[in-house]
Amino acid sequence: MHPFTNIPADAVGNVGEKKLLHKINEWLGPTSPPAPLGMGDDCAVLPASGGRCQLATVDALVYKQHFDDSAHPKAAGAKLLKRNLSDIAAMGGSPQFALLGLMLPSTLRLDWLKAFTCGLREEAEKWGVALVGGDLCETKTSLGGHLTLLGSAERAVLRQGGQKGDHILITGELGGSLLGNHLTFQPRLREGQWLATRTEVHSMIDVTDGLLKDLPALVPPGCAAGIFPETLPVSAAARQLALKSGKTPEHHALGDGEDYELLFTLSIETDLEYFIGQWGKQFKTPLTCIGKLVAKSSENLEGKIIDLKTGNAVELEGGYEHFGKT
Amino acid sequence: MHPFTNIPADAVGNVGEKKLLHKINEWLGPTSPPAPLGMGDDCAVLPASGGRCQLATVDALVYKQHFDDSAHPKAAGAKLLKRNLSDIAAMGGSPQFALLGLMLPSTLRLDWLKAFTCGLREEAEKWGVALVGGDLCETKTSLGGHLTLLGSAERAVLRQGGQKGDHILITGELGGSLLGNHLTFQPRLREGQWLATRTEVHSMIDVTDGLLKDLPALVPPGCAAGIFPETLPVSAAARQLALKSGKTPEHHALGDGEDYELLFTLSIETDLEYFIGQWGKQFKTPLTCIGKLVAKSSENLEGKIIDLKTGNAVELEGGYEHFGKT
Repeated sequence: MHPFTNIPADAVGNVGEKKLLHKINEWLGPTSPPAPLGMGDDCAVLPASGGRCQLATVDALVYKQHFDDSAHPKAAGAKLLKRNLSDIAAMGGSPQFALLGLMLPSTLRLDWLKAFTCGLREEAEKWGVALVGGDLCETKTSLGGHLTLLGSAERAVLRQGGQKGDHILITGELGGSLLGNHLTFQPRLREGQWLATRTEVHSMIDVTDGLLKDLPALVPPGCAAGIFPETLPVSAAARQLALKSGKTPEHHALGDGEDYELLFTLSIETDLEYFIGQWGKQFKTPLTCIGKLVAKSSENLEGKIIDLKTGNAVELEGGYEHFGKT
Repeated sequence: MHPFTNIPADAVGNVGEKKLLHKINEWLGPTSPPAPLGMGDDCAVLPASGGRCQLATVDALVYKQHFDDSAHPKAAGAKLLKRNLSDIAAMGGSPQFALLGLMLPSTLRLDWLKAFTCGLREEAEKWGVALVGGDLCETKTSLGGHLTLLGSAERAVLRQGGQKGDHILITGELGGSLLGNHLTFQPRLREGQWLATRTEVHSMIDVTDGLLKDLPALVPPGCAAGIFPETLPVSAAARQLALKSGKTPEHHALGDGEDYELLFTLSIETDLEYFIGQWGKQFKTPLTCIGKLVAKSSENLEGKIIDLKTGNAVELEGGYEHFGKT
């Protein structure tokens, strides 16, 4: 069977990424167990003996999709690993072993590949990751790869676990990643590990698709996420991008992807000031409370993001989604 | 930096796969530990608590490289998993968890993807594999993916471990995989697990690049692999292909890739007839002794394959290697 079609209605491009993932999961049936063992969190949480659980995650890096000619190949190599490190960070885990599958056209520059590999190596050395498996595959034109990262955690912090009243906090600053942060970001591993030691941290995710798309994953049934838009830690890059884009800096902070910051919920009983003070003794990374989990005020607000000042749902126009639909 | 070049001397296509892998390993430095923990065997053997060791492997499947329009998408999906299952089989292990990274153009037929996924699912169900992680990535034109498979083994049978005098045995039949076996093959998981329980099995590999390319991996220092070419279990497909190709069936049995059979060495002290008899009580899969590990008769025969009848090195013309060079 020829895999491709000219008829848009028959193609995966017509479905939208979220729906496509849902379909694939449906087709896989019981072979795809629910999270936390299976798909649906930042990592799979696998049973392991000896108290700690094992974490596993896979991420891709593709030319013209995740990097372009403006990126130094070292930065591209580092990014492939860092995307996965961010997933381990979002569970509060430590990375250990990586397996790398590369797809390379035969016209790839050898010195490009060398620099890419060195970028990957430097990042791996920084975090003590051993590259234990690999596969090289020749393609006609596509350049990219997948990296699978294994790690472990004493306690894996899941996306589920948030409770009504929880504070919502975010590390770092948001928006404008396109201007450089999507390559230069630091995975929040030490931050995630520290957060996992605090039982008042109820749930966590790393922000990769944009705050507005990722926050709903932390919202438990019967709740909505309320935010104070004026508290958002808007990055300088978001402000800079806004000058050109015609959108507001807040729009970029809410909607832009690839922030790779940690978003988590914190028990309502926590003394916020004290918690942020403790954080400040450990990390220079900013930490900001941007809202809280509230009881949904009506059915159609379930799982939505609400502006706590106006009570309205926060929505952006023109969001981007892979595979066509928004 | 633009990744591609028109100058052949600067491109990865000029290097040849084996040398390219060697270079990448060199660039990775200490980040890439030696086998069995790192690359160089069929799977990485990771430390695990509780007596068993953990196995990890990654393999690719790419359109026009590992399958084409003549393949049913179900068979393609199954093949991606089976390639990895064969690696686990070659260590004597049991598969457990898989992570799937797919690269899809938006013009991919939805029903193609459904059938592909179902093929993967059926194979996963057969072997009790849970798909616990995934990533979807949009590409311009390339269709393919990587699957990482985790498993475990009581005793992992390595490529290293063969001793001078060991018998060399192979499961199944060899050659002509192109006519169908590359899609329909059965990973020799149960066979590998049974072999791992026999301490007289010293070393093992699965034959994916062709017997002649894969056998040297089992040859210890100071030895060569001696074979009796007339004992080779030549498949009917190899004979059929020979009618068209102008090569001998033995050429196909020695050189064709994608047999996915288990090649292993067995202690010289083993009663071969008894061993093969015990095998026959368990499996219908043929098992053939094709030679033995011998002391190399001269320096330039180290690691080579020798025809035990003539004493000459067995060599084929026109072997195929990815990334250009042979």
